[in-house]
Amino acid sequence: MARVLTPRAEDFPRWYQDLIAKAQLADNGPVRGTMVIRPAGYSIWERMQAEMDARIKVAGAENAYFPLFIPESYLKREAEHVEGFSPELAVVTHAGGKQLAEPVVVRPTSETVIGEFMAKWVDSYRDLPLLLNQWANVVRWELRPRTFLRTSEFLWQEGHTAHADEADARAYARRILHEVYEDFMVGVLGIPVVVGRKTGRERFAGATNTMTLEGMMGDGKALQMGTSHELGQNFAKAFDISFSGRGGGKELAWTTSWGTSTRMLGGLIMAHGDDNGLRVPPKLAPIQAYLMVVKAGEGVAEAAASLRDGLRDAGVRVGLDDRVDTPFGRRAVDAELKGYPVRVELGPRDLAAGNAVIVRRVTSAKTVVPLANVVAEVTAALEADQKALHDEALAFRESRTVEVSSLADAIEAAQTGWARVPWSAVGPQGETEANGKAVTVRCLVRPDGSVPDSEDEPGLVAILARSY
Amino acid sequence: MARVLTPRAEDFPRWYQDLIAKAQLADNGPVRGTMVIRPAGYSIWERMQAEMDARIKVAGAENAYFPLFIPESYLKREAEHVEGFSPELAVVTHAGGKQLAEPVVVRPTSETVIGEFMAKWVDSYRDLPLLLNQWANVVRWELRPRTFLRTSEFLWQEGHTAHADEADARAYARRILHEVYEDFMVGVLGIPVVVGRKTGRERFAGATNTMTLEGMMGDGKALQMGTSHELGQNFAKAFDISFSGRGGGKELAWTTSWGTSTRMLGGLIMAHGDDNGLRVPPKLAPIQAYLMVVKAGEGVAEAAASLRDGLRDAGVRVGLDDRVDTPFGRRAVDAELKGYPVRVELGPRDLAAGNAVIVRRVTSAKTVVPLANVVAEVTAALEADQKALHDEALAFRESRTVEVSSLADAIEAAQTGWARVPWSAVGPQGETEANGKAVTVRCLVRPDGSVPDSEDEPGLVAILARSY
Repeated sequence: MARVLTPRAEDFPRWYQDLIAKAQLADNGPVRGTMVIRPAGYSIWERMQAEMDARIKVAGAENAYFPLFIPESYLKREAEHVEGFSPELAVVTHAGGKQLAEPVVVRPTSETVIGEFMAKWVDSYRDLPLLLNQWANVVRWELRPRTFLRTSEFLWQEGHTAHADEADARAYARRILHEVYEDFMVGVLGIPVVVGRKTGRERFAGATNTMTLEGMMGDGKALQMGTSHELGQNFAKAFDISFSGRGGGKELAWTTSWGTSTRMLGGLIMAHGDDNGLRVPPKLAPIQAYLMVVKAGEGVAEAAASLRDGLRDAGVRVGLDDRVDTPFGRRAVDAELKGYPVRVELGPRDLAAGNAVIVRRVTSAKTVVPLANVVAEVTAALEADQKALHDEALAFRESRTVEVSSLADAIEAAQTGWARVPWSAVGPQGETEANGKAVTVRCLVRPDGSVPDSEDEPGLVAILARSY
Repeated sequence: MARVLTPRAEDFPRWYQDLIAKAQLADNGPVRGTMVIRPAGYSIWERMQAEMDARIKVAGAENAYFPLFIPESYLKREAEHVEGFSPELAVVTHAGGKQLAEPVVVRPTSETVIGEFMAKWVDSYRDLPLLLNQWANVVRWELRPRTFLRTSEFLWQEGHTAHADEADARAYARRILHEVYEDFMVGVLGIPVVVGRKTGRERFAGATNTMTLEGMMGDGKALQMGTSHELGQNFAKAFDISFSGRGGGKELAWTTSWGTSTRMLGGLIMAHGDDNGLRVPPKLAPIQAYLMVVKAGEGVAEAAASLRDGLRDAGVRVGLDDRVDTPFGRRAVDAELKGYPVRVELGPRDLAAGNAVIVRRVTSAKTVVPLANVVAEVTAALEADQKALHDEALAFRESRTVEVSSLADAIEAAQTGWARVPWSAVGPQGETEANGKAVTVRCLVRPDGSVPDSEDEPGLVAILARSY
């Protein structure tokens, strides 16, 4: 097969951009840092949305929609928040042909505007918890944009909840972290994320605690795949989200926020892609079985339609490619690029022999299968390859993760992968030193892998890495 | 029942705003003209999206996502388009802490930016038709905002397609109009829309033909519920969407665009709402059967859970309200406001008698039903009331539509409903006169109800009305 992409080992960032272009996942938009998500990319995002949305609803949050435009003054009510976001804001100064009395910012995130409405809607402890989520676009001006990973506009879900006490807020932020995000990322994306607590320096602007899910990419770097924040009473104070408690007195609510975005598409590419293109985990794939008519022939179209129906009836998401006017080789290269988990190839010769050819994207295994067995073979392959992709990513992460005991060794190890080092050997000062060498503390975890309640807990492990 | 809303007959606009507030569908946003769509409203929008999206996909269009920010220069490339939208634009002049070299507009619609990318992606006739759709927010600064109907930001889908010839573009714009929009509005929203052609004056800025679906609201006014446009080669010229044709020569594409928005939520309220609140058609309703535990009692929770499961298994979307601490009367008023098609009420006394009470929102019919029959009764009621709502709206429209032969009579009839009048008795001059009296030509239809190919066809009927 001719070389379609720059090999990963040769130039990983170039391979990434090549893949996005050749698999037609996205294009750069005309305004710096923006992107166009093309159908091949957007259909994967729709599957991410569907899987996430179902989990968010099971966790009890309801979808709503808050305005894109936020009065500049709202941002200023929470000091750390405005400081964190000011450099990235896009500002509308003119609208309807006139200069606006107060400029409005295009939302970089919605804690402030949602805080304002939570204050209106929450009256009594009976109104709590208030569990909201929205699917929306947000804008953060990027100086060094990179498709999916850092774009001036991106799509995401942002959850915002208010609770009667700290324990409830804390538990809910963790519930989302594990039952929604980790479950989706491990079980559907097939990416074995490490779930931990951010250090004070890496915390979200305005949060009291930021928890993160970090995935290892194919070059050994880390990608923050999602975050869940405890906001304490910071936004409740700034927006007066108060309620009459069970005792009758006025109390301040405790809030959380949590988000995942189109950045996950970048994670998917970099965690699972290979030199031939994307590899989409079967549970995520919009098209799980790509049925290709090799060339026209008597009965081939009918046999293909029958295979398609059989696969569909078995619950498989099928795409039919009967563009026999386009050379088969070119279509096969495109199918590799797009990463359909299983290809089913059917031509006149196969049909005459009563067979089809099954090609598995993950293992590259190619087998000739009697037509009657295609559905069973495909469903078995989808099941097996979901696991295979995850296990491959896990084995890779383990092979690139080193246990060390000093900061110097950790910074060294982070050149090619992740370092696990006692947090006591790093600390805020060591973090500064690492940052100077483009290495960050991705998160802190307990020795048993669970998420700490404080960075001061004894025995914590810090994960250091280069990152996107 | 205490008066919860201003009666429709007393003050229709006030009733509309009351209903939106009391049913918790939406709130006004902090920036003038923007809105917050609350969970009760957003869940209906999600159902609209799901039903529309499925139909759009059947029609072959693929979802994608284009940037929110459009260079100001793009808008200027199509003269009529920029003239139409300039007064409504929101402009970003500062971003990332700096003044931008070229201001960017927040998309009011995406013909221009999508035209730019169609030009990149279309090379040969084999790339056509190119059928795209996006779900997105758009911004059009409104001087006289009204929730859902005219808001400075709204949510919508916008389809954009490119075709090799005019006939194909024309057929596709009509396919969307009928198979997607009309099918959804009549079959799911239960609103008997009139489908017709806009006059030159009412045409979309940049289109060669705008087709519309007009619904009659409860006060006799018309609401434009959706539009499908033929754009001719206007945008293809402006953005150079050209391709090598079958003959090898370079040809210009023909494009279409079509959209429906959160405005449909306003149409739903005004077409079906009554003095007690919203009435949601069963096929649309996020909650079709609202199961209310009247008060606690032995076995009631279990019986309610069992009813819920039975309804779910029968494919009914069920909501369970077991908030027995809240007075039943208040919950019942709220259920009326929210417009759940069927309520199933179950309390200790009902249970002791082996019954539940079914209350239908459309007919107000209240019947006592043996528990074993609840599922059958509910599914029958949902089926019947979907039809009943549509038929009621149709009968109302017919009762408020008058056939007249002169412009003067049409303007008179439009004070309370719709006038059907020969287009030859109106014409562009009569249209100006009507507009001066706040009456517009909603659309032109053929005598048999089909959509004309030109406003010059003989025998056309014009529908005149006041409108939102």
